[in-house]
Amino acid sequence: MTDRTESQASSRRQFLKSSLLGGVAIAGAAASGRAAAAGEPLITEVQEWNQYPGEGVGTRPYGQPSQFEQHVVRKTVPWLTADAISSVSFTPLHELDGIITPSGLCFERHHGGIAEINSTDHRLMINGLVEKQLVFTMADLKRFPRENRVYFLECAANSGMEWRGAQLNGVQFTHGMLHCVMHTGVRLKHLLDEAGLRTSGKWILAEGADASAMTRSIPIEKALDDCIVAFAMNGEALRPEQGYPLRLVVPGWEGNMWVKWLRRLEVGDQPWQQREETSKYTDLLPNGKARRFTFSMDVKSVITNPSPQSPITHGKGHTVLTGLAWSGAGAISRVDISIDGGRNWKTARLDGPSFSKALHRFYHEFDWDGSELFLQSRAMDDQGFIQPTKDELRSVRGANSIYHNNGIQTWHVGKDGVVENVEIS
Amino acid sequence: MTDRTESQASSRRQFLKSSLLGGVAIAGAAASGRAAAAGEPLITEVQEWNQYPGEGVGTRPYGQPSQFEQHVVRKTVPWLTADAISSVSFTPLHELDGIITPSGLCFERHHGGIAEINSTDHRLMINGLVEKQLVFTMADLKRFPRENRVYFLECAANSGMEWRGAQLNGVQFTHGMLHCVMHTGVRLKHLLDEAGLRTSGKWILAEGADASAMTRSIPIEKALDDCIVAFAMNGEALRPEQGYPLRLVVPGWEGNMWVKWLRRLEVGDQPWQQREETSKYTDLLPNGKARRFTFSMDVKSVITNPSPQSPITHGKGHTVLTGLAWSGAGAISRVDISIDGGRNWKTARLDGPSFSKALHRFYHEFDWDGSELFLQSRAMDDQGFIQPTKDELRSVRGANSIYHNNGIQTWHVGKDGVVENVEIS
Repeated sequence: MTDRTESQASSRRQFLKSSLLGGVAIAGAAASGRAAAAGEPLITEVQEWNQYPGEGVGTRPYGQPSQFEQHVVRKTVPWLTADAISSVSFTPLHELDGIITPSGLCFERHHGGIAEINSTDHRLMINGLVEKQLVFTMADLKRFPRENRVYFLECAANSGMEWRGAQLNGVQFTHGMLHCVMHTGVRLKHLLDEAGLRTSGKWILAEGADASAMTRSIPIEKALDDCIVAFAMNGEALRPEQGYPLRLVVPGWEGNMWVKWLRRLEVGDQPWQQREETSKYTDLLPNGKARRFTFSMDVKSVITNPSPQSPITHGKGHTVLTGLAWSGAGAISRVDISIDGGRNWKTARLDGPSFSKALHRFYHEFDWDGSELFLQSRAMDDQGFIQPTKDELRSVRGANSIYHNNGIQTWHVGKDGVVENVEIS
Repeated sequence: MTDRTESQASSRRQFLKSSLLGGVAIAGAAASGRAAAAGEPLITEVQEWNQYPGEGVGTRPYGQPSQFEQHVVRKTVPWLTADAISSVSFTPLHELDGIITPSGLCFERHHGGIAEINSTDHRLMINGLVEKQLVFTMADLKRFPRENRVYFLECAANSGMEWRGAQLNGVQFTHGMLHCVMHTGVRLKHLLDEAGLRTSGKWILAEGADASAMTRSIPIEKALDDCIVAFAMNGEALRPEQGYPLRLVVPGWEGNMWVKWLRRLEVGDQPWQQREETSKYTDLLPNGKARRFTFSMDVKSVITNPSPQSPITHGKGHTVLTGLAWSGAGAISRVDISIDGGRNWKTARLDGPSFSKALHRFYHEFDWDGSELFLQSRAMDDQGFIQPTKDELRSVRGANSIYHNNGIQTWHVGKDGVVENVEIS
């Protein structure tokens, strides 16, 4: 073992202050950790759970969260949609950390409810411009080479309400159509190669086995690049609301294209112009033309804490700000933070794995002086894209848009620590 | 879009055969995907779930696995222990893929049952050879800089029954005291720096708030290196059976040291010689001496499929073999596979993220000719360690050991595809 001196120990603490906290004294945190008075027999109270045996193993063959975490759930906004069958529930981003979204908390977006499929009876068909039409069982698919990739999935309508100014008060509702999991499956290219693509095949139609028979057109280049026909998420079988037993993973592209309950892949020579790529998932521009086939999700970030659902409750002093950044074009290279509404910026600390087209976790530790704050985050990716302001977006796209709002989000922190969704110009 | 010719499409398929399948024809898989006869109106049957709306959003605020996956659970072996309070349940490794273990399926090992702790009332105390004794609330801890790391956790007794030859028939039972999650928390070093380590402090005692008050001694070098005081796993709060609200993460070291329900950290000048590091978690050698403080988990691997709980059901032809490899010393650099009991070896394909001291996923695709197989995997890490045979281990450690069996596992595959746990010399 190494020998250490008091001065070494002291200099190590000094290092912590200067390098990890950006010059902010950690004394704020120390003050909240209660120090014992000299001679006081400091001991934490021995609680009841320390005195009696708890529940044994095997009582819950499939484990559940603590009873004290029952508030950490997906939530709905009933007035958003006419019914729950074609609707959305939101990921509680303000309750999470790291970059993996627990499968039970991944947001839902269905167009005909959740198909409850028996995987034994499920089939995937490949037809159209192929040499050999094929039908696969789930067991068939598991005989192809598999891969494991971490990707974010964002609904194109995420933050859609915010196009018209600050609306919903909570990061769960403004940005919660977002998740990030590790998917396991077969590269779509392997299946298309097996069927034998004809040279006239330029597009793929992916069709779901749900009541809406969700269909989207995907360019063949993307299909042959990084798409995965996935059967597992975060290590286990897909969850029913995420497409059990099979979903198409379309990395970096809008969530609607990640067709769930995948039953058919048709190869064609042009896009199909289905409902979900014409009347929906397009943006009407001021000049009367519509943006469509806007597949890739743009570089974006949001501060998850503090946020309206996660106010500052500890008063002045050392404060941990954290959030998420992502880009459909690649990996996040940098996130900047402003606490004064965009006048001054500091570079956040990225921590945890950095995968292309995956969520990235950032932190910014600062000493809050108790004054009003306007918190913003701005992400940059490794392809050179920079997250714009909402006004910059509107100057190009106008006021009709629903989809692809990647504008910078502002949270106002009051002197009482309460946080509100606001917009500043 | 690029233009492709039939010959290009054909050569792409050839590439798939040669590069991804190691020369094994994918025709085996093709044969199982049912091709349509010429002119046949090939269409998958439209199932009932394609015709009626399913359950809407919001019905399950916290999602659950499909009703068709109810067999994927942790299992117990009642005769192993006197009661369920101090016992173990096993991770169903044969049902999982990738490297992340779903939180609900992470194995359990308790010594006094599961402490059900209200996080608001929980405290972490630091005492002993420090300048300033401290008590932290959970909110206090969340004001320190956080980090996110993926690490495996293996019980030192994992595969312990196998020291005396092939025993339990199933990878869930032979190797299922193993999981791998992304933890979020505060580097232990930050907390010790905050308290101010005295130079005489050489060891840390970690104590749990459960009924067994689990206690383990940890060298100060490890405590200051990569240990984390974690409050989240896979993005959400720790599960109760994994130490909610706080657990010590001791990367690469035996699971028993990852003290759950962490309530106290005492700094001392020597190890405490607690029950769990003297009467338990030691191995009696043939010369009468006991190995103890055997902290690091050695390089190891196991084939999860095929395995006794996951026989080959598709008959001859293309077969996907997969498994897990890990090392407490670093990252896995290579895994070799034998299908003939160790006479011939081929290098497996590693896929997915590679983190130091985390699970690694490997695959080996081969064409099964229907004959008897003796499957083995052998892992190597980036520190040069190689997984030994069980006989090599026994020649050094003798016949009394319970812990730290990292020997090569053998599965026998019969001509009928049935898999058995066997041992060969």
